[in-house]
Amino acid sequence: MFVLGIDPGLTRCGYAVLRPGKRGKATAVAMGVLRTSAEDSVPERLAELQTEIRLLHDEYQPAVVSVEKIFFTHNASTAVGVAQASGLILAESAARGADVHQYSPTAVKSVVAGDGKANKTQIQEMVQVLLGLTELPKPADAADAAALALCHLAYDPSLGRKTISAEPGNSQKHGTVKSDGAEKVTT
Amino acid sequence: MFVLGIDPGLTRCGYAVLRPGKRGKATAVAMGVLRTSAEDSVPERLAELQTEIRLLHDEYQPAVVSVEKIFFTHNASTAVGVAQASGLILAESAARGADVHQYSPTAVKSVVAGDGKANKTQIQEMVQVLLGLTELPKPADAADAAALALCHLAYDPSLGRKTISAEPGNSQKHGTVKSDGAEKVTT
Repeated sequence: MFVLGIDPGLTRCGYAVLRPGKRGKATAVAMGVLRTSAEDSVPERLAELQTEIRLLHDEYQPAVVSVEKIFFTHNASTAVGVAQASGLILAESAARGADVHQYSPTAVKSVVAGDGKANKTQIQEMVQVLLGLTELPKPADAADAAALALCHLAYDPSLGRKTISAEPGNSQKHGTVKSDGAEKVTT
Repeated sequence: MFVLGIDPGLTRCGYAVLRPGKRGKATAVAMGVLRTSAEDSVPERLAELQTEIRLLHDEYQPAVVSVEKIFFTHNASTAVGVAQASGLILAESAARGADVHQYSPTAVKSVVAGDGKANKTQIQEMVQVLLGLTELPKPADAADAAALALCHLAYDPSLGRKTISAEPGNSQKHGTVKSDGAEKVTT
């Protein structure tokens, strides 16, 4: 069973596929960033992103998809593209029968880093610890996507726990990360 | 050849299928509103809307899709859902190979009603005249979708004209409207 975390975006869309383990542990199966070219039209870029999202569903068939919840309180200039990207991601994920959840950035930061105002580096460091990665997960969008998946695992009552735990001394045992590259380019 | 106009929305999504004619004329082939239930989750509603949009593409195979351009200057509470709906509509339309265009509400009102600040009733009345309809097109969302398609027809240089024209005395001849109902409910 996989959990797919997605940090929506038109220019950069982070994704992370995690395999939940025992006692709040999770293993990273794939992490990366989907990009679309700013030279293409917005409809073309959204169609490219839709194709990539479908490929992720085809390959991993995630039972759960955890997506960042969109707010329009700031960054209105880029917010439209982010919201449009999230729209097709939510639609495609629900159409596939996945259990789709949205979490606010503050909720994700609180759960993963213990601080709703954690910065990107703090999130990357906590994702590294929680997933037992040998290196800092990059780029930040991929780490944010992993944090979204970890946030859902912490909330999901079906897993019988309310918090995620990190045991750095033990985490390397679970560090069987098969990454398909830090960046996946759609052209 | 059909032009599909879409006024994006999660609660109400207007659509209009027009057949371009000679000298700026166009005939309405279908007009209506796609609705999703507020009782369902947002991902489920977006998936329902995606299904309906695909059915429109299957049935009419529009060569052109004209969609309202989204801005986030106001109505932030509902703007997220509208933007998410537009995202999947643009993605699906581009993926189908349609020529996808976005027009601002002001541009549509200027072209169709000659006034960028025209109200909904004025748009409905102009759509009725321009399409030679025997009745005022309702609901307003369907009329707005028709206005988007008419706006594109006015702009499209391939049709050899820059303005749309209305000849009320002649328009009834073209009034072969086959409407599939004012409201199409998705459940």
